[in-house]
Amino acid sequence: MTYEVKSLNEECGLFGIWGHADAAKVTYFGLHSLQHRGQEGAGIISNNQGQLLAHRDTGLLSEVFKVPEDLDKLTGSAAIGHVRYATAGEASISNVQPFLYRFTEEQFGLCHNGNLTNAISLKKVLEGQGAIFNASSDTEILMHLIRRSHNPSFMGKVKEALNTVKGGFAYLLMTENKLIAALDPNGFRPLSIGKMKNGAWVVSSETCAFEVIGAEWVRDVKPGELVIIDDSGITFDTYTDETQLAICSMEYVYFARPDSTIHGVNVHTARKRMGAQLAREFQHEADIVVGVPNSSLSAAMGFSEASGLPNEMGLIKNQYSQRTFIQPTQELREQGVRMKLSAVSSVVKGKRVVMVDDSIVRGTTSRRIVQLLKEAGASEVHVAIGSPELKYPCFYGIDIQTRRELISANYTAEEICEIIGADSLTYLSLEGLIDSIGIETNAPNGGLCVAYFDGNFPTPLYDYEEPYLKSLKEKTSFYLEK
Amino acid sequence: MTYEVKSLNEECGLFGIWGHADAAKVTYFGLHSLQHRGQEGAGIISNNQGQLLAHRDTGLLSEVFKVPEDLDKLTGSAAIGHVRYATAGEASISNVQPFLYRFTEEQFGLCHNGNLTNAISLKKVLEGQGAIFNASSDTEILMHLIRRSHNPSFMGKVKEALNTVKGGFAYLLMTENKLIAALDPNGFRPLSIGKMKNGAWVVSSETCAFEVIGAEWVRDVKPGELVIIDDSGITFDTYTDETQLAICSMEYVYFARPDSTIHGVNVHTARKRMGAQLAREFQHEADIVVGVPNSSLSAAMGFSEASGLPNEMGLIKNQYSQRTFIQPTQELREQGVRMKLSAVSSVVKGKRVVMVDDSIVRGTTSRRIVQLLKEAGASEVHVAIGSPELKYPCFYGIDIQTRRELISANYTAEEICEIIGADSLTYLSLEGLIDSIGIETNAPNGGLCVAYFDGNFPTPLYDYEEPYLKSLKEKTSFYLEK
Amino acid sequence: MTYEVKSLNEECGLFGIWGHADAAKVTYFGLHSLQHRGQEGAGIISNNQGQLLAHRDTGLLSEVFKVPEDLDKLTGSAAIGHVRYATAGEASISNVQPFLYRFTEEQFGLCHNGNLTNAISLKKVLEGQGAIFNASSDTEILMHLIRRSHNPSFMGKVKEALNTVKGGFAYLLMTENKLIAALDPNGFRPLSIGKMKNGAWVVSSETCAFEVIGAEWVRDVKPGELVIIDDSGITFDTYTDETQLAICSMEYVYFARPDSTIHGVNVHTARKRMGAQLAREFQHEADIVVGVPNSSLSAAMGFSEASGLPNEMGLIKNQYSQRTFIQPTQELREQGVRMKLSAVSSVVKGKRVVMVDDSIVRGTTSRRIVQLLKEAGASEVHVAIGSPELKYPCFYGIDIQTRRELISANYTAEEICEIIGADSLTYLSLEGLIDSIGIETNAPNGGLCVAYFDGNFPTPLYDYEEPYLKSLKEKTSFYLEK
Amino acid sequence: MTYEVKSLNEECGLFGIWGHADAAKVTYFGLHSLQHRGQEGAGIISNNQGQLLAHRDTGLLSEVFKVPEDLDKLTGSAAIGHVRYATAGEASISNVQPFLYRFTEEQFGLCHNGNLTNAISLKKVLEGQGAIFNASSDTEILMHLIRRSHNPSFMGKVKEALNTVKGGFAYLLMTENKLIAALDPNGFRPLSIGKMKNGAWVVSSETCAFEVIGAEWVRDVKPGELVIIDDSGITFDTYTDETQLAICSMEYVYFARPDSTIHGVNVHTARKRMGAQLAREFQHEADIVVGVPNSSLSAAMGFSEASGLPNEMGLIKNQYSQRTFIQPTQELREQGVRMKLSAVSSVVKGKRVVMVDDSIVRGTTSRRIVQLLKEAGASEVHVAIGSPELKYPCFYGIDIQTRRELISANYTAEEICEIIGADSLTYLSLEGLIDSIGIETNAPNGGLCVAYFDGNFPTPLYDYEEPYLKSLKEKTSFYLEK
Repeated sequence: MTYEVKSLNEECGLFGIWGHADAAKVTYFGLHSLQHRGQEGAGIISNNQGQLLAHRDTGLLSEVFKVPEDLDKLTGSAAIGHVRYATAGEASISNVQPFLYRFTEEQFGLCHNGNLTNAISLKKVLEGQGAIFNASSDTEILMHLIRRSHNPSFMGKVKEALNTVKGGFAYLLMTENKLIAALDPNGFRPLSIGKMKNGAWVVSSETCAFEVIGAEWVRDVKPGELVIIDDSGITFDTYTDETQLAICSMEYVYFARPDSTIHGVNVHTARKRMGAQLAREFQHEADIVVGVPNSSLSAAMGFSEASGLPNEMGLIKNQYSQRTFIQPTQELREQGVRMKLSAVSSVVKGKRVVMVDDSIVRGTTSRRIVQLLKEAGASEVHVAIGSPELKYPCFYGIDIQTRRELISANYTAEEICEIIGADSLTYLSLEGLIDSIGIETNAPNGGLCVAYFDGNFPTPLYDYEEPYLKSLKEKTSFYLEK
Repeated sequence: MTYEVKSLNEECGLFGIWGHADAAKVTYFGLHSLQHRGQEGAGIISNNQGQLLAHRDTGLLSEVFKVPEDLDKLTGSAAIGHVRYATAGEASISNVQPFLYRFTEEQFGLCHNGNLTNAISLKKVLEGQGAIFNASSDTEILMHLIRRSHNPSFMGKVKEALNTVKGGFAYLLMTENKLIAALDPNGFRPLSIGKMKNGAWVVSSETCAFEVIGAEWVRDVKPGELVIIDDSGITFDTYTDETQLAICSMEYVYFARPDSTIHGVNVHTARKRMGAQLAREFQHEADIVVGVPNSSLSAAMGFSEASGLPNEMGLIKNQYSQRTFIQPTQELREQGVRMKLSAVSSVVKGKRVVMVDDSIVRGTTSRRIVQLLKEAGASEVHVAIGSPELKYPCFYGIDIQTRRELISANYTAEEICEIIGADSLTYLSLEGLIDSIGIETNAPNGGLCVAYFDGNFPTPLYDYEEPYLKSLKEKTSFYLEK
Repeated sequence: MTYEVKSLNEECGLFGIWGHADAAKVTYFGLHSLQHRGQEGAGIISNNQGQLLAHRDTGLLSEVFKVPEDLDKLTGSAAIGHVRYATAGEASISNVQPFLYRFTEEQFGLCHNGNLTNAISLKKVLEGQGAIFNASSDTEILMHLIRRSHNPSFMGKVKEALNTVKGGFAYLLMTENKLIAALDPNGFRPLSIGKMKNGAWVVSSETCAFEVIGAEWVRDVKPGELVIIDDSGITFDTYTDETQLAICSMEYVYFARPDSTIHGVNVHTARKRMGAQLAREFQHEADIVVGVPNSSLSAAMGFSEASGLPNEMGLIKNQYSQRTFIQPTQELREQGVRMKLSAVSSVVKGKRVVMVDDSIVRGTTSRRIVQLLKEAGASEVHVAIGSPELKYPCFYGIDIQTRRELISANYTAEEICEIIGADSLTYLSLEGLIDSIGIETNAPNGGLCVAYFDGNFPTPLYDYEEPYLKSLKEKTSFYLEK
Repeated sequence: MTYEVKSLNEECGLFGIWGHADAAKVTYFGLHSLQHRGQEGAGIISNNQGQLLAHRDTGLLSEVFKVPEDLDKLTGSAAIGHVRYATAGEASISNVQPFLYRFTEEQFGLCHNGNLTNAISLKKVLEGQGAIFNASSDTEILMHLIRRSHNPSFMGKVKEALNTVKGGFAYLLMTENKLIAALDPNGFRPLSIGKMKNGAWVVSSETCAFEVIGAEWVRDVKPGELVIIDDSGITFDTYTDETQLAICSMEYVYFARPDSTIHGVNVHTARKRMGAQLAREFQHEADIVVGVPNSSLSAAMGFSEASGLPNEMGLIKNQYSQRTFIQPTQELREQGVRMKLSAVSSVVKGKRVVMVDDSIVRGTTSRRIVQLLKEAGASEVHVAIGSPELKYPCFYGIDIQTRRELISANYTAEEICEIIGADSLTYLSLEGLIDSIGIETNAPNGGLCVAYFDGNFPTPLYDYEEPYLKSLKEKTSFYLEK
């Protein structure tokens, strides 16, 4: 599975640090391990004794920080950084985070992962009061709310602002003398706290960053929590008591790196369990298991172990498949020219293949991979998906806000099986998914948001309520690209 | 394992096509699948009814062909292309292939994979006769020999030239009206013939290119063979009868893509067999198997199946680890900052790990990975290598021409085990390697060149004879970078 | 004289058009002719039936618009554009104009040439009311004032905002259905109106843009005037009656292109008259006149005609002297290596040279040119400057806001003559300057701002009042770089 | 006049130095002052105690040497450099000079200004003997001839090679221990010798480089001369006695920088004399003189002084007119959009203008400038050209090798006057040109090659003889672009 084909994208990765001589450089390496969360923009703001310094641009981290000077100029012992996934057409530099706000009397750096559900309403109200928004993203709203709050204390202003915005969010806010991290009341997005050997505190969207920089995981940020880090250490506060964990289940299924651990559950291990459970729910005869690289390799391992079927490398992903402007013509595509994935004939020829993938969004990718395997000689292709049918959009930070492109919102599993040309199609049950992840919590759905699968959103939808209800009634118009 | 650390590099990948309206574009996609064979330069020469057109530059294929025009200008129905691995300091544009030769009366395109063992002597002789060499590579020598041959026929000139050069070579020569492929008498380098659905003939260093472009494999080029493709079809000829298959065993161990098949043996399958055989030769207790991504994942699968130990994803390779100018300082490195590979604590903590890798060159990478695993909590790390000890250089196209950097030429396995901090170190036996590959042939060593392991070179070494013998006697001066 | 050495820089050039199918392209060509007014950033906003589209970046126009697509995407029949001169350290993309403001209900494009004298105070007040400034320039202030005005009509809001900002300014404001141009009450910065053959209205900082795009000059915008252009044509309004023309005299002396005409006076002709008047005030014997290319060639012509001395090409400016990172070492500089200007020995050898230049800012350039001429064999070098001594800073849009770097604020003409190594030094008298320009007006100083020469600022200085008065008392610390 | 419109281009500029610690850097500055002689490629080869180091690429010098490292790596105390003008389609990197030849036993650097008349024949003969040419330019031929010479001494080989090539050439050859400069037997191309303050010897295509680097002119290289510079100093030799000075007259008219001096004649002064003589030959009434910037400003000065008519700045060249991909559409062009040159209405309105230009090649530029002046209000435009009618091609290094594009080879002066829309057209007489330049010599035509004007070529034309004679008879097919 590749990002290009599936329109299922996380919005961003965050990293912050306080108390390290090479703060910007550590942030760079932290962001480097979060690059899978966003490839369209990156930036770092460092804090040199109250002076904030910024560097950001569109592109991959290695394209944004081209020469050592780009990083060296970001002096100071604290920093926040961001990698950005941007929806089409808005990949402009003015949306790349962290944002740097230079007021006459103070400075702030701000970055954000998630999506607000009342952004449109808030923007209108603020504009009516004279506010000017520079970027098209939601992120600025928080800064406007903080600046306009009449609460006498700065932390009071921040809490008031956090109680005004709704939806899914993890924020990092760098002030002149502290670093603040905040998470929404449902903890939709992951955010963890770590500590480096030299005592520096770090926060990161995923724990894989801690492995990379040699930090030790301390604990995950809780829903509705405020974390304040300054020269005197770390303190914890809350801005609301009405919280209930509902972490995005797709983080476990697809987004997060397998070496990350979220709420005590290692992602690779969760995926193996999903694969094993999927094997138990699977009801067909087969010879070999083939995972779609790279995201489904863990699930394929679990499927293989539970089923006893050998796990084979029947699909190869080209390591050099990034950005190219050269694309096959339609004719070449028909002749079989493909750049990213190829099937290994000598592995799959004559075999009944269980093709393990994590999810089906539009179905186009699945159809192509089934075709690849069949052309390479597979006698049967049984598609096994490590998550339930994706039927509903997400409003908390994943880039599916319309049902039109979700094949499962429009077709039954049987129809989809036929459309993608598979010999059978098995989805993991919702219970199977929840059990496989297995967070230790009393929250409903095992502490997970599974709204994409069952349509039960854990919060009111605010600005999205009406369009969502309308989309449920409306006749969809999904057509598969042939 | 990463290219940057290990100085073990193939020299180049070749692709050629005759008889397709989009010849240059198909060549682009073919080369794209061969990118792992060389990342420092790329080029294509197309043939538009006798007019040869070229585009080449340093860098990855996607950097060389930046805009569609770069490729669109290469019109015509035949083409040859090349991806280049270059030794340090010579990555200049003048060495990037294919070379285009425009004589007053005819034109040629030429590219080459391999290394000549008598290049220095031939160059001196030719210079003494007035020849001027433009590039520092060996490749031009063939063109000088062809042009100076007194043989009356063109194919006679080519054969005379091929009988003069010695060593390992696969050549593609584009003339105004045909495409010629030639392989050295030992077939040190792989070269395969395929056919597209529209009837176009293709040749490629690896069969993975055929999967990508939708071509069918026809057969591999034989040692000492000449393949001539023109508008009337394909014909086969030989320039020598003194041939004996000795294909580079490292192609199976490390270089080739797992989905390629060489002399009837699929590379992934061979690697699984190496892993399985390694498991049989392995004599320690362990809990889990962890392959070093990406090259050793197949061997780890085989080891797991044969040993019954679970195959786990204990090491994660960052998908975005290519080219960056930002490097950790020494201090950060000590704090644990690493960009390319990280160990997954939740997987390896408290476990006795079998770390499966394909080979050890200098030992630095192995030492780092062992350390990674131990820091992540592995209780024991048993290193299992899918090939024998690498003790001797190669003169046929792999970039190890000195024994100084080979740790196995300087230390015993016991010493190396201590140096890399492992709890045990197991190499695959030479017999185990040969059996695992299992080419159907009567040639010695199962049709493989295993000189890096046993020092028995299948040919005289010509210009390298004296320096090689001297290196065997000389006290080596290998020091591990601490 | 070159921009690099002299720190005397205009802040920006403006161009706008309404009613042309190729509006963005015409704007590009208009800006191209204004490139001398700013080389550090450029941008265009087009208006396609109410939808505003933007492209802007740092660098020269040809660097910002690199490929035809950059311009082609700016569809629509109206546009505004800007070339920017930026003070050091703030050459970031976020300051490049025109700014695009996308509110929920409407959009604006805004660009600005000039400098506000009450920007700091206004910013503080606005920030206190919750305003967030994105860029470090003054320009955004106007938009905040417009949006916060309680005036019921849009033009009322604009007028209120224009009456609130103080200093030197020319604004172009693109709304969804009109283009508005506004000039400060003193008309410090030039702004002209023209008409294209197809009927499209254009506004430009200089009339040279009209020559280039084939437009006819209509008239100059008046101090305190508002020009509104929409589909029904052009209308004129005012936002204040307290106006008095005080156009920047340095526009005539140095900034504007010689082919521009400002307030009825052609710049080349004015410079010739300055040169002629300078010749009349000049009291030394000499053989030839040499103008410093390119800005002083007109004055040199006038000097030559009035004095009867031949005008010679004794100094040559390298046409290719733009941006290079290769600079001579100190040692090479001493050996005479110079990249931008060279003296022609065969012209100046043994001659008493009148070196005509337009102004002396820091004196370093003058000293180098005198030295060049002497090394090339000039027997005497008499420096004749086409303007009076530059003693005071400017707060209306020219980049001299400190007296520290003005050599004439620190030394007498006699001392400067010695410092630059000249045989004599003659400045044009203030009366001579005013007469040479000769605008038809009853305003004081012939309608010119000559505050840099006499310290009499035509307006209160607001935020700059205190620092300015302090600078007059304070002992300056001017040191010539040796 | 601009390079883009006129197809009249010099082929290259040369610079060499021996004996300076910053040899490559001085070469850079020398080449910088020769940039007008070629903008399509540049390179430097330095000599560090016998080790030759190269850097070269397509583009302007500032594009080729982008970062200080590009130059810093060229260590050593001697260097040669080259700026290249390339004919269309051959602007590839492989043609950029100096060429670096690395033989097993020695190294050479070679660069060339000029054109050989027997290159095609020589290339064929050499190829028949096995020679392989890498580039499409003539330059390599000399190296092949040197390497194939049987003369026992190296200087003997060089002389033999120089006697074999025919046409116009200036060569710089860097060996491991000396720098050799050579000029053709007619001295078609300029080449001068200078000395730096530290004693280093320099050679340059033009003396303007000496002014820039602070070197003193010593003397010009003579026709048929060989200059050898090494650690023991400079020595002079000849390779032929059959010499006769015939320096390209277009160097004085158009190519060379005005501050250069060639064979004792300063270019600016020569141009002023051409202008003065042109004024004496001119037979019309007029009000003002306007030179076409930049090449005709000197001639306009001379015309003005001799005629008594005022010299005015009626045409302005945009200082920022280099490379842009944005071009006016045909419609915009008709509306008057022009990027490079504009006429100053306030200067030319109602005036009878003498428009002084240096030459007319195709006539398109002249027609446009006449039109510009008329649209700006000039009542009459009298075109005065500072050279005779350009009727014949050049084979010695200027890029006119066909008569088809020369308007004067196809039309009479009267017809051309009408075509370009002028009120009169006056060419300088051939005698006037020769007298105005005035080299002190007894050689025919005052030591000048004036073949473009009278068709009398000073040498046999070899490979060009037949096509030239054919072109004289053939009906030409010149059509002016409307």
